[in-house]
Amino acid sequence: MSEREPPVGPLDALRHPRYAGLRTFARLPAIESVGRADVAVLGAPFDGGASFRPGARFGPAAIREASLLLRPYNEPLDTSPFAEAQVADAGDAGPNPFDLAAAHGAVEERAAELHGAGARVLGLGGDHSTALPLLRAAAARHGTLSLLQLDAHTDTWEEYFGAKVTHGTFLKRAVEAGAVDPARSLQLGLRGPLYSADDYPEDRAMGFATVLARELDRVGVGGALDLARERLRSPVYVTVDVDVLDPAFAPGTGTPEPGGLTTRELLAIVRGLAGLELDVVAADVVEVSPPYDAGGVTAMAAAAVAYDLIGLMVRGFA
Amino acid sequence: MSEREPPVGPLDALRHPRYAGLRTFARLPAIESVGRADVAVLGAPFDGGASFRPGARFGPAAIREASLLLRPYNEPLDTSPFAEAQVADAGDAGPNPFDLAAAHGAVEERAAELHGAGARVLGLGGDHSTALPLLRAAAARHGTLSLLQLDAHTDTWEEYFGAKVTHGTFLKRAVEAGAVDPARSLQLGLRGPLYSADDYPEDRAMGFATVLARELDRVGVGGALDLARERLRSPVYVTVDVDVLDPAFAPGTGTPEPGGLTTRELLAIVRGLAGLELDVVAADVVEVSPPYDAGGVTAMAAAAVAYDLIGLMVRGFA
Amino acid sequence: MSEREPPVGPLDALRHPRYAGLRTFARLPAIESVGRADVAVLGAPFDGGASFRPGARFGPAAIREASLLLRPYNEPLDTSPFAEAQVADAGDAGPNPFDLAAAHGAVEERAAELHGAGARVLGLGGDHSTALPLLRAAAARHGTLSLLQLDAHTDTWEEYFGAKVTHGTFLKRAVEAGAVDPARSLQLGLRGPLYSADDYPEDRAMGFATVLARELDRVGVGGALDLARERLRSPVYVTVDVDVLDPAFAPGTGTPEPGGLTTRELLAIVRGLAGLELDVVAADVVEVSPPYDAGGVTAMAAAAVAYDLIGLMVRGFA
Amino acid sequence: MSEREPPVGPLDALRHPRYAGLRTFARLPAIESVGRADVAVLGAPFDGGASFRPGARFGPAAIREASLLLRPYNEPLDTSPFAEAQVADAGDAGPNPFDLAAAHGAVEERAAELHGAGARVLGLGGDHSTALPLLRAAAARHGTLSLLQLDAHTDTWEEYFGAKVTHGTFLKRAVEAGAVDPARSLQLGLRGPLYSADDYPEDRAMGFATVLARELDRVGVGGALDLARERLRSPVYVTVDVDVLDPAFAPGTGTPEPGGLTTRELLAIVRGLAGLELDVVAADVVEVSPPYDAGGVTAMAAAAVAYDLIGLMVRGFA
Amino acid sequence: MSEREPPVGPLDALRHPRYAGLRTFARLPAIESVGRADVAVLGAPFDGGASFRPGARFGPAAIREASLLLRPYNEPLDTSPFAEAQVADAGDAGPNPFDLAAAHGAVEERAAELHGAGARVLGLGGDHSTALPLLRAAAARHGTLSLLQLDAHTDTWEEYFGAKVTHGTFLKRAVEAGAVDPARSLQLGLRGPLYSADDYPEDRAMGFATVLARELDRVGVGGALDLARERLRSPVYVTVDVDVLDPAFAPGTGTPEPGGLTTRELLAIVRGLAGLELDVVAADVVEVSPPYDAGGVTAMAAAAVAYDLIGLMVRGFA
Amino acid sequence: MSEREPPVGPLDALRHPRYAGLRTFARLPAIESVGRADVAVLGAPFDGGASFRPGARFGPAAIREASLLLRPYNEPLDTSPFAEAQVADAGDAGPNPFDLAAAHGAVEERAAELHGAGARVLGLGGDHSTALPLLRAAAARHGTLSLLQLDAHTDTWEEYFGAKVTHGTFLKRAVEAGAVDPARSLQLGLRGPLYSADDYPEDRAMGFATVLARELDRVGVGGALDLARERLRSPVYVTVDVDVLDPAFAPGTGTPEPGGLTTRELLAIVRGLAGLELDVVAADVVEVSPPYDAGGVTAMAAAAVAYDLIGLMVRGFA
Repeated sequence: MSEREPPVGPLDALRHPRYAGLRTFARLPAIESVGRADVAVLGAPFDGGASFRPGARFGPAAIREASLLLRPYNEPLDTSPFAEAQVADAGDAGPNPFDLAAAHGAVEERAAELHGAGARVLGLGGDHSTALPLLRAAAARHGTLSLLQLDAHTDTWEEYFGAKVTHGTFLKRAVEAGAVDPARSLQLGLRGPLYSADDYPEDRAMGFATVLARELDRVGVGGALDLARERLRSPVYVTVDVDVLDPAFAPGTGTPEPGGLTTRELLAIVRGLAGLELDVVAADVVEVSPPYDAGGVTAMAAAAVAYDLIGLMVRGFA
Repeated sequence: MSEREPPVGPLDALRHPRYAGLRTFARLPAIESVGRADVAVLGAPFDGGASFRPGARFGPAAIREASLLLRPYNEPLDTSPFAEAQVADAGDAGPNPFDLAAAHGAVEERAAELHGAGARVLGLGGDHSTALPLLRAAAARHGTLSLLQLDAHTDTWEEYFGAKVTHGTFLKRAVEAGAVDPARSLQLGLRGPLYSADDYPEDRAMGFATVLARELDRVGVGGALDLARERLRSPVYVTVDVDVLDPAFAPGTGTPEPGGLTTRELLAIVRGLAGLELDVVAADVVEVSPPYDAGGVTAMAAAAVAYDLIGLMVRGFA
Repeated sequence: MSEREPPVGPLDALRHPRYAGLRTFARLPAIESVGRADVAVLGAPFDGGASFRPGARFGPAAIREASLLLRPYNEPLDTSPFAEAQVADAGDAGPNPFDLAAAHGAVEERAAELHGAGARVLGLGGDHSTALPLLRAAAARHGTLSLLQLDAHTDTWEEYFGAKVTHGTFLKRAVEAGAVDPARSLQLGLRGPLYSADDYPEDRAMGFATVLARELDRVGVGGALDLARERLRSPVYVTVDVDVLDPAFAPGTGTPEPGGLTTRELLAIVRGLAGLELDVVAADVVEVSPPYDAGGVTAMAAAAVAYDLIGLMVRGFA
Repeated sequence: MSEREPPVGPLDALRHPRYAGLRTFARLPAIESVGRADVAVLGAPFDGGASFRPGARFGPAAIREASLLLRPYNEPLDTSPFAEAQVADAGDAGPNPFDLAAAHGAVEERAAELHGAGARVLGLGGDHSTALPLLRAAAARHGTLSLLQLDAHTDTWEEYFGAKVTHGTFLKRAVEAGAVDPARSLQLGLRGPLYSADDYPEDRAMGFATVLARELDRVGVGGALDLARERLRSPVYVTVDVDVLDPAFAPGTGTPEPGGLTTRELLAIVRGLAGLELDVVAADVVEVSPPYDAGGVTAMAAAAVAYDLIGLMVRGFA
Repeated sequence: MSEREPPVGPLDALRHPRYAGLRTFARLPAIESVGRADVAVLGAPFDGGASFRPGARFGPAAIREASLLLRPYNEPLDTSPFAEAQVADAGDAGPNPFDLAAAHGAVEERAAELHGAGARVLGLGGDHSTALPLLRAAAARHGTLSLLQLDAHTDTWEEYFGAKVTHGTFLKRAVEAGAVDPARSLQLGLRGPLYSADDYPEDRAMGFATVLARELDRVGVGGALDLARERLRSPVYVTVDVDVLDPAFAPGTGTPEPGGLTTRELLAIVRGLAGLELDVVAADVVEVSPPYDAGGVTAMAAAAVAYDLIGLMVRGFA
Repeated sequence: MSEREPPVGPLDALRHPRYAGLRTFARLPAIESVGRADVAVLGAPFDGGASFRPGARFGPAAIREASLLLRPYNEPLDTSPFAEAQVADAGDAGPNPFDLAAAHGAVEERAAELHGAGARVLGLGGDHSTALPLLRAAAARHGTLSLLQLDAHTDTWEEYFGAKVTHGTFLKRAVEAGAVDPARSLQLGLRGPLYSADDYPEDRAMGFATVLARELDRVGVGGALDLARERLRSPVYVTVDVDVLDPAFAPGTGTPEPGGLTTRELLAIVRGLAGLELDVVAADVVEVSPPYDAGGVTAMAAAAVAYDLIGLMVRGFA
């Protein structure tokens, strides 16, 4: 990146207080105003794929609001992401609230455009179904992806109410589309009552490795990262469904499951990826449902993990 | 009704406290347990037709919870609705969250079944699009309906995001389907910024009479009822979108508009219909969105107006 | 009061910001620190008489918190209550949460003590059952009382779950005890579904005059005050159940009823009493339930009406 | 159970969305509709034994609402509880809100009835005093019980405000009644400021073994389970006061104590009981107070632990 | 305006759903992107002048979020403000949170710049002290202003805690600075307990005419507009402190006063100005405090009144 | 303390229920009523030093409200603090909301007075800038202090918006003033995005030792206490910024940072100081912002840690 002019960073919070100004992610410039992006933050405000509590259509706005508190230097990752790369807010892909296919199409098109221009894309959901077009666009550019999924649910069901594409089935579709290679993928944080005793076996039969939330007590963050090291291969996509967190840390989500991770664990896992020398080409943070977010803590956790995901992407440029 | 055995009424709150027991509407029996209903309360928990804030899929449950406080005697209408008729909770028509047509189909089918068995149907939304199948089912039984719509919005737009059936277009569809006769209809409470200067003229060109919220200051509840007397003819359907109320009285709704009615005005209008000798064959209360309902006041207002609508229906039996 | 030293007033808000300091009512001195009171504010934090939503045990604290915003001069009543009389906070009568009789006994004893020392007593509930010991203590000092009740409910039921003393029966008990003379009393704001068509007739047969909430639309505040002038005779007791207000104005209460008064109407009625030359010897504001008080607006309204009730009492000294 | 017809399970969430339909526990059939139960879920909506924040009378309804998300297969316990046994919702024992003895009597009678018909009973409180009639009924059927209590407080005080039966004294009463054998019992999660240095010694002098919350840091879930193995003997009763959780995980409770367990720890302990080959004949989850439950996370945690308790009971049938 | 190219309007909500995209006011273009503005919306996110509840620094962001629901045609004013004039979002004047003088200076400078470029300015507070620099900038351009103040408080106190410029004293400072002519001004909605019996007389002695909230019951909106017609002379500034509304309509404000206006009354008054042929050169909506805004209704009302104020300004161009 | 009469303790909660009576800290006597204090609890309700979310001016009141649940015996510290020493509530130092210097001056003067009378002072903020006058007063009495800071942020920045004294710079000012000796100090819980890579190095260059939140995973509470033992020397001051906790445990704070401590960890660290034989001469708990405190859990955690800090101080008397 050295030949180009230095990136335009966020507003200086020492001069512009954080509660002032427009709510771009981390107060970064809109992509239109800088013309390019190494990392583009793209909202996908669609929740028509949610089976229980809706509201994730307001997720991107809430995460942007919570991102006001992000500062320039990522200490755990030892990077100044907004100085080392041009990170820009690409706005929201204009989703049609009444037509999942149209909405997904718009998200995929916009993400493909950004990837095509050389950007890595951080998606902000929306329900988890929005990860499908994001994955497709990334795979179209980078080939079949190795996936790290932080989630309470496998999302590999076949269908739901006769619908093939929902937040509980998107991953099966992504595998079928060749966007994700289960053999190079890992699901972490799974838990909760299941529809059947076959749910996890079938998921693993597709090729996925899993670390259940309750197994994390035994193997710890270190053990989880060991497995990540074993499974993941560049190019990598990281998808974070905030319901991987316990409801105390993420009440504002569509399908909460008690017994989840703490935010500290989640951040430790994401940051731990830095040691694995992986190329994270795209990522997302999904399922933040603001109308259920008492205290706004879910959006805060989402903004924090989004910030670390950007840090990982930027480190990949070095 | 005199030959039949007396109706099964709600649980006796003097023996079973209101916070105990299952949440049927007004603690009435489920229709399965009594086998028939003169008035059936039917939930339509679907919000896939909402363009802004979702959540109305939880509306029927919230209205039922708020209905715990309803007691047997309707003093303003001088009727004991649950003693004079068999009122029963018909549960929810099982809506598919991912497919509006399927959801609407299920609502229409169930409502038609209830009408077919002689019941009048009180629908609990759900977004306002769910009024379309409810209207269709009622019209199939009773013929084209005279409509009283209490609402901030006309809901007669042509389409929205390319979709023909949404909460903002349902009424145009109902007119086209012959379910509603605009010339015998009245819209009351309209207000708020519009898409164009043609919105109200086009609505009136369809045949609707209107009383804007700001006109109510001039004509009063009495004037509104005069116009209702002039326009409405049996059989009548009353649809109450809770956004007819000011956001102070109904914060928990999908598309709130400041400057609306008070709950006292709304109840005075509904109760005032009793003097018009109309046959209310069906009705609905829609657009209660519990995740936005600070203090639960929206659901309370909805339960109160639902209770009065039942009272109107029951008076029609006399 | 001229011979005595001038009253100790509230903290000066121009020097001590309102959010600082202990939460006595209106930041007035505790009665212990001034030794006497012309008007004593007495909390009755008991809600064991509530049949639906509890929480009024935290009512006195919430009203005191909301009373921080009260200032020295009551403009509508043209009185500076805290300068013209010694108003003091008498704390809370220590109610036993598990024994209604003991709690009521403690409230009555403390109120009697205050009356005995020449104070007028403003009670802060607590559920409405706490008005019974407050009425008894006032009547023991001043004789049978003329009652103005601002309330959605008559509270003259015979019993509830076999209990003779609850928030729905307290007034019948007060009449039986000779504390209240129905013929000199008025109930204002009644509304809502009833247990039976006999509820209001039986209440009126006890001697009460009533103005229903829906009648207020017709007679207005002026008409209500005309009736008050006709019915009320000194000594008067005013009891304000905050459920007289619509849930939009008072969501934080135990038994909300849609269709109620606005706070402006309530205040206009209470202030209108000033023109009737009545001697208000005691009063109460009850049924504020803070856990349900979204936005804290109920406690604010309660503090405002309490302030006007104090103003009425103080004007009686002139 | 093999001779009987297969159990009626919950509504199929793949056909009936979770936000639709009546709120029975886990959407299971009401006991009346299936005629029998191997495990009966019984609400005890009474909070007249609570000394601080009330509201637990709405606990059963909130837990049922949160239980919508439970699915058929309990993965950690490897059981499909609703298929392996008839689990049914027995509704609420109709508690008198004004009379603790009457309320407890009704709970005990109904629980005894259910035990008498061969069911195991999962109680949903209500304040912790409601565990007393539940324990009595279970002991009447199964003999003196071995108790696992997950709680911040010992609840073995002698009295409170002169009352012998409250949520802080119920366990002493249960021991005196011979329903609980302290020598076969364990209290886990105790913490918080105490009334006196004698509180824990006196509790232990009654025979109870204890693991304080702060000791859990040292011994871990494994250590706690070791002690459980040592102490507990069938028949076992498990009582879960949600205040065993930290307020971040359970804000909606009557007497919160900072420094508590995480939901993950609580679930790990309950699930760990499966390895101890104990016969859990009854259990309860109490002290969920919905008006204080920001984000609804307390009810979610309660539903999750209730689900695991049912799983334990059902495994006992094998 | 006819020679210029047509204004750039808001995003088309029929194509871009309202919950998507950046939160400019009414989804209008940022002023930078259109280069000019006939009406500029300027945030003043400063609350260092608030004496009780802070939080108004987040007011501009909350009003922008609530303004998502505004549509292009203002029906009561019969104007399409965003088509008839270039309305643009000028962002926030970067206020220093620690230095009132610096913050006010920045607001005044930016407002003066906008006025200098020919724009009318709609300010979004911040606490009411931010109206002082807005008034100064408007008066510098247009001369001494006629003021319509919709407010519960006079804001003409001399000082507060020794501070000369606060939200309770700003208007006295504005008068002293020659920015406001009290003889051509009107204060409407005043109410609440006062510091002294001299408060209103002293305010009127400065030259202000007043309509108290309780007087509105008598004179009505029509009477208030009659007085406005008598007093106001172009150029006019309208300042709306949302505490003019009753707390039920505006809980989210710094110094709420029970007994206030309804939103319908407020809008009727503002819209009524259209009949007075006045030139509204600037205006503001202040004191929205989002952390206290249960249900978000305050910000909704603020956005609605801001929309009508823009309509008034735009009508002035005709 | 043996010659003096025994301390006056809190109200007896077994006779006065916790929800009744005035809200002094832990229901302790006001200092005026007992005349002296070994430990004085002093509120500093000022938030003019907060850069992001305000509201901490209501912090002392909220902590007092939450402290209702504190009981007499501190089991982990094996002390009955209110019996072994006279602990009293010294009220709030009357801060000027508009003038930081005046507010700080008032806090310092009052704290100095208390120290001068022999008390140890527990401050309740207010934003973290209020720790500066508290530190100054303590150092004036006890000499340069050894500081244990539990905080997400170093608070050693040079300035913010040109202001030298804010909640982010107070500690640099305290060091410059000689009130704190960095070489005998420890900062624990630091985390979150930083302004620059130099932030921590510069902080450490001032002499501070640090344990980052993410390091705590590695070293544990034990390791943190080892470092505390190494660094801290009497006299010690402990400052607790509640943002040291994760937002799940402390949503109600001005500058939340995801990934923080649990309340159990925080309490374990504070209690662990008891083993270090240190003389804690003063302490504070700051940055509780009630308007953001969903569920009130932040104030609960603050009250709990304040109770343990008092316990540490009282043990120092032995």
